[in-house]
Amino acid sequence: MDKYQFIKKQLSKTNKKNDENYVVSRIWHLINNVDVKMITQQYILRDLATKRYALADIYFPQFGIIVEIDEPYHQTEEMLLKDKIRQNDIVQALECEVFRVTVSDNIVEVNKQVDFIVSEIHKMIAKDGFVPWNLQEEYDPITYIRAGFIDADDHPVFKTISDCCNCFGAGYNGLQHSGARHKYQSEIDIKGLKFYPNGEWNNQLEADDEHFTEFNFDPAKNQAYLEKRLHKMRHELALFAHVKSELGGYEYVFKGWYRLDVEETQRIGKLLYNRVSKIMPTYFPKDGEAPTILAKAFDQEREIARFYDEGVLGVFQKKYPKYQIR
Amino acid sequence: MDKYQFIKKQLSKTNKKNDENYVVSRIWHLINNVDVKMITQQYILRDLATKRYALADIYFPQFGIIVEIDEPYHQTEEMLLKDKIRQNDIVQALECEVFRVTVSDNIVEVNKQVDFIVSEIHKMIAKDGFVPWNLQEEYDPITYIRAGFIDADDHPVFKTISDCCNCFGAGYNGLQHSGARHKYQSEIDIKGLKFYPNGEWNNQLEADDEHFTEFNFDPAKNQAYLEKRLHKMRHELALFAHVKSELGGYEYVFKGWYRLDVEETQRIGKLLYNRVSKIMPTYFPKDGEAPTILAKAFDQEREIARFYDEGVLGVFQKKYPKYQIR
Repeated sequence: MDKYQFIKKQLSKTNKKNDENYVVSRIWHLINNVDVKMITQQYILRDLATKRYALADIYFPQFGIIVEIDEPYHQTEEMLLKDKIRQNDIVQALECEVFRVTVSDNIVEVNKQVDFIVSEIHKMIAKDGFVPWNLQEEYDPITYIRAGFIDADDHPVFKTISDCCNCFGAGYNGLQHSGARHKYQSEIDIKGLKFYPNGEWNNQLEADDEHFTEFNFDPAKNQAYLEKRLHKMRHELALFAHVKSELGGYEYVFKGWYRLDVEETQRIGKLLYNRVSKIMPTYFPKDGEAPTILAKAFDQEREIARFYDEGVLGVFQKKYPKYQIR
Repeated sequence: MDKYQFIKKQLSKTNKKNDENYVVSRIWHLINNVDVKMITQQYILRDLATKRYALADIYFPQFGIIVEIDEPYHQTEEMLLKDKIRQNDIVQALECEVFRVTVSDNIVEVNKQVDFIVSEIHKMIAKDGFVPWNLQEEYDPITYIRAGFIDADDHPVFKTISDCCNCFGAGYNGLQHSGARHKYQSEIDIKGLKFYPNGEWNNQLEADDEHFTEFNFDPAKNQAYLEKRLHKMRHELALFAHVKSELGGYEYVFKGWYRLDVEETQRIGKLLYNRVSKIMPTYFPKDGEAPTILAKAFDQEREIARFYDEGVLGVFQKKYPKYQIR
């Protein structure tokens, strides 16, 4: 996969809607910068309290910018339903700036609205701290290993469950299962989960990603797996949601570090997990060399990140002043 | 209809093909000038001798520029067949400059090729004599009436058969027939014809527009109409081809002034017409006021244009030095 395929796909998602195709392609081509990442038709969590989310017509993750295209017609229920699988990939973008383009039959008016958004994005690109979009790095576990942590807020995406495990030093080349044990942390499993109807399984990820449940429609099977997880398996998970990919297949999005809620699970008869951290430390493989750790970040007593580089540490501290660095 | 709808439609024709959609939208948005007309998927006659024509991915009629997009895959036979009706609207663009964009997976390479074409078009816009695209005027008979002539090379298009007749001073508001008599020229009929299978009729327009035939599959009906045309009707026609419109419906494209070939028609048993001129004089309505005629253009003894304006006359003389001005 490359940027050309990626962006083509973003444009093609608007194929059926000519107004959207016009606006999206105009924004992309006038930004005219392959260092900018643009995602179309992305579910965005916009309000934590009400858990309200919306399907953003265009989302620029580097700038936290959403563009809504007000078309003469609206999405049908059917279209929304068809898109249900993608709803499991919800990006938290609470502080997003929202721009609107109101489509009319006046091409000059439509262009003027788009041009304003483009000029705003050009200002953002010119700002210090703009990080160019690097598609190869994004999908490569080594990017997160070298950083020393993986943060759900960065919306990390992987092609395979092996890559998910490799963020934590697994060193796998291939893996047939839906996960594996964490090689460094004896309490943690790494798990890829489908949050859409999948045979007898009906797992649910809350819209704000703070909780999820694992549930089997067959009461016997549900109880058996519940007991196994409660009494024989690890209670913490590095969670990767299996979602529809930009390019047609499926991929895994890192959601965070979760812990089984034993009490509530027994009460409701359904495995319930709570997120304990959006950030997890990553690991170099055991058989390879690793740089010296300069510092670690802690959320109370929980280690959530390790740092090999002063620059990365500095950016982290600026973004997360609440965490202790030791 | 407006420019926004027109251009949206041009982009939407590339919906199914993501590479084409990317390139076409990039070219349009980076030209970034609503005075430029862009047509996608236009049949273009490229070689008069061999009558070879091609489906141009993008055509810029103001500049005589064609852009061909070389995609990793090609159009299927089925797609070409489906498009058969549009083939009847063939634009002569023999002197066209052809640019190619070869699609690859390198977005920077694709963009670079497009940017070169855009810069060439920007140069053409900057040149003297660039006439901004005016969609309203294009469809309005008064544009051609005021000019004093209508030229098939300009690819004049009309919404209704009334508008076709009105170019010759008919002054109709509506017309249920496929044509009418010329109000000023007693030898000429104005006629809209379908050049695609239409019930029992199978009319054929040659690819270079120099000849056409009218033919009914029912021998009796064919002979009856042939006799009527030969002996009771006018032998000359202002021909408008009924073609698929840019916006989904149908419209009429002016093809020229044709005369029935009596001898050949009798020999082959099929009405055959030859084009006698690509240019025809237009007329103001009889009941309205008309400006003074400054001069007329003649192709031998045939009046093909009249002029009310020195500027229009000057442009015509420059373009057609072979015609006599009196």
